[in-house]
Parts: sequence; structure tokens; C-alpha cells
Amino acid sequence: MAEKTIYPFRVEPQEVDFTMCATVPALGCAVLNVAGIDAHGKGFGVDVLNERNCSWVLSRMAFEVDRRPKQYTDYRIATWISDYGRVLSTRNFTLTDCAGEEFGRAVTQWAMIDLERRTALDLSGVGRAHAEAMVPEPAPAEKPRKIAPFEVQQSVTHRVAYSDIDFNRHMNTMRYIDLMFDCLPIELHASQRGMRLDIHFLHECRYGQLLTVGWSREADRWLFSIRNEEQEAVRAAVEWR
Amino acid sequence: MAEKTIYPFRVEPQEVDFTMCATVPALGCAVLNVAGIDAHGKGFGVDVLNERNCSWVLSRMAFEVDRRPKQYTDYRIATWISDYGRVLSTRNFTLTDCAGEEFGRAVTQWAMIDLERRTALDLSGVGRAHAEAMVPEPAPAEKPRKIAPFEVQQSVTHRVAYSDIDFNRHMNTMRYIDLMFDCLPIELHASQRGMRLDIHFLHECRYGQLLTVGWSREADRWLFSIRNEEQEAVRAAVEWR
Repeated sequence: MAEKTIYPFRVEPQEVDFTMCATVPALGCAVLNVAGIDAHGKGFGVDVLNERNCSWVLSRMAFEVDRRPKQYTDYRIATWISDYGRVLSTRNFTLTDCAGEEFGRAVTQWAMIDLERRTALDLSGVGRAHAEAMVPEPAPAEKPRKIAPFEVQQSVTHRVAYSDIDFNRHMNTMRYIDLMFDCLPIELHASQRGMRLDIHFLHECRYGQLLTVGWSREADRWLFSIRNEEQEAVRAAVEWR
Repeated sequence: MAEKTIYPFRVEPQEVDFTMCATVPALGCAVLNVAGIDAHGKGFGVDVLNERNCSWVLSRMAFEVDRRPKQYTDYRIATWISDYGRVLSTRNFTLTDCAGEEFGRAVTQWAMIDLERRTALDLSGVGRAHAEAMVPEPAPAEKPRKIAPFEVQQSVTHRVAYSDIDFNRHMNTMRYIDLMFDCLPIELHASQRGMRLDIHFLHECRYGQLLTVGWSREADRWLFSIRNEEQEAVRAAVEWR
């Protein structure tokens, strides 16, 4: 039986905002880096999968941050895989400070895709093969919630640029979160309130595409829909506590 | 007599572009983080200066990158202060791979400003006080070159957003470089050619301001001018080898 794996981090200067605390996108970036490093270390990283013309694709993410650590603060991210469904595998994370107090957590769901056919693969066999990497501990937060379609109240546009793209020349996951957080009023970032983000990745956005970031507000809940020139690419909700 | 100080780094996933190599802005960010950490460690960091209502401000930077290291590559940045002028102090950097081969270098010039009056302070006294922190070794590259005013051929606009700003709610130094690199043709990033960047910081840009990023090309030399709503804020040249 596997155990949770723990990775040490420190809040670097480029990760803080004007409050001198790590931004939610920066903490989310650390979470996704851990996913990559941990899969690699256990032998089912993107490098190995690519040799078989497959890759992991992040489908949904729930991310809760109670408080944001200050610049140069050490913290730790623990990660474990709790289950493999037919299409999605679930990878969990907790973020803990030096005193051992949890200040954030994430539940991510990943599909494995065939890079040629661009279709999702059946994970049943993978689940059996990787059974020894699973940790029978429940997810630390509610799994990513469904977000119903909604009417956009306001929007901005953004052209996908060099600084936005990953190795596939697709928009980087965390840059979507940056785009959404840039639409929120600055007072909300100053407030240091805890929050929960639910995000669904529906389609990829490519270098040079013009994106429309639309949003709508219902009290402390902000809904986002990011469309590329063809279709809706990302839908998300940010709930402030 | 002081010696150069050396800081270890590793190319993290969020720092690479589609070539899987660290971007020039990411390497530049590491260089500036070293400046902050080294000044802090030697007792003249921004934290100490702020108590006296002063701060370091980056005035000019020359940055040469011969080749960009791959994701997860370890490298080292060495830094030293070579001189204090009346207004500017010079901090130098070399970037070296694990085999000890230098693949990049930077020369930065910093002013110390009075945060209330927003004026530059005379550094003569500081130079004497910090004499023991200086390393009598010449700068590893030509100091930041003057860039003459030029006629803008093309431009894009950018609204300074939450993800762009630092603790002062001013545009982050490295985001200027991101903005400029986003204007270059993607083939230039793919080419992996070495380059030299000269950048002058003339005025600050604040949260919410609309910036105009103008550029002009002369063969392998790209000139940039970033203006806020009031004046020219940054002028730079990127020369590809």
C-alpha cells in the first residue's frame, strides 16, 4: 500500500501579490507541479506516457485556500491518488504550514488521452496496474462541482500569447486562473478571505486565438466562462468565504 | 574583501516555454530574486531600507543568454556588487550550468530612492558603508547600453492587471519583459538563438493603467517602448545572435 508523498515548497517573490502573500494561481501552480513530479517519480509521468502516444489531461479541479502564506514561507504539499474511475483518476493534495496546520487542499481529476485520436482512454486497466500507488484515504474536500451554464454579465478579451502557452502551444492551465482572477475587484484580493475554486477544462485554447473571458456575479460567488473562437473552453466558479 | 555569492536554482515547469527550455523572462526573474535575497542576506535589503523610508529601484539591466536550460535542469547564479557610483550601484550576475559552463550573465544598475520624495539618494556614503560587500571583479558583460528614441512601427495595448503587479501595485519588472517577448514572432523563440536584452526603467506603471507596447525592427535588433497613459515608462532593445 502506498503512502502520501510530501514535497517541500517556499513562497518565492514572483509568487506573491501586493499583500506579500502567495497568489491563488501561484499555489495552484505548485499543486500541478507536484502532480507532474509525483507521477514522474512513480513511473507514470507524461514522459513515459508520451512514448506510448498518450498523455494526462487535467479535466476538473477543486481548490480551496483558507489563507495565503507570506513571501519566503516554507510549506508542504502532500499528494495521493485515491481512485481510478473508468475515465477519470482522482489525485488529492493538502497544503500544510510548518506547524502542520492545513491551509489549503485540492482535488483534481485527470483523463488519459490518446494523442493521435484525441480521445479519452479507459482507465480500468491502468487502475489495476497502478493499484500499489493508490492510497485509500478520502479526498480532502468535496470533488469538483458541476457548474451550470449561466448568462455572462461582463467580459474582456485576451489573445493567447507566448507567455501563456505550454509545451503543446496550448494555453497553460494556471494562466486561465490568472485571467479569471484579473477580472475580480482588487479589494477582494486585498481582503484575504478564504475561497474555493471549481474549474472544468472543456477544450484547449491555442497560441494566437482570441479568448473571451465572461463572468457573472451572484453575491460571493463568481462564475466564469472562457471561450475561444470556436467554443467554450473553460467554465469555473470562485466562491469567497 | 567579499566574494561572489552563489545561489542554486532548478528550471521549474512553469518557467519553460513550448521548447521545454526556460524562458528569458523566467531566467531574468531568477536573477532579480537573487538580487533581493543577496541584499537581504548582507543587511541592505528592501526590508531594512523600508524602515528608513528608502528602497532599491532597478534602473537599467543588460541580460545576455547564450542558451536556455531545459526543464528540471540545475544551474547556479553567482552575484557580486562591483561598484557604487554617486547615483547607481552595479550588481553583476553569471548563470552557470552543472558542468561549470557559463550560459548567461547580467549587469544591473540600481538607484536608492527616498520613498516619500520619490527622488534618488546619493550613494557615496552607502558605497563607503558597504565597501566590504564589494568584489573588485569587472562586470561580466558590457554595461546597459543607451537606447536612442525611435519611431514605433507596430503596437499592442495592455491593461495592467492583478497578475502583473508587485507589492507596490506597480507593474512587475519581469512582466515588462513578458510583454515585449510576447510581441516577437514565435519562430524566434523556437530558434533557440542567443540574445542580449538592454532595458531601461524610466517610470512606473500602476494597476489599471492602459499601456501601449510599441516596437520597431532593424534586422536582428528589436526596439521596444512601453508607454503608460502619461509618459514613456520602459525602453528596451533585444538583439539576437
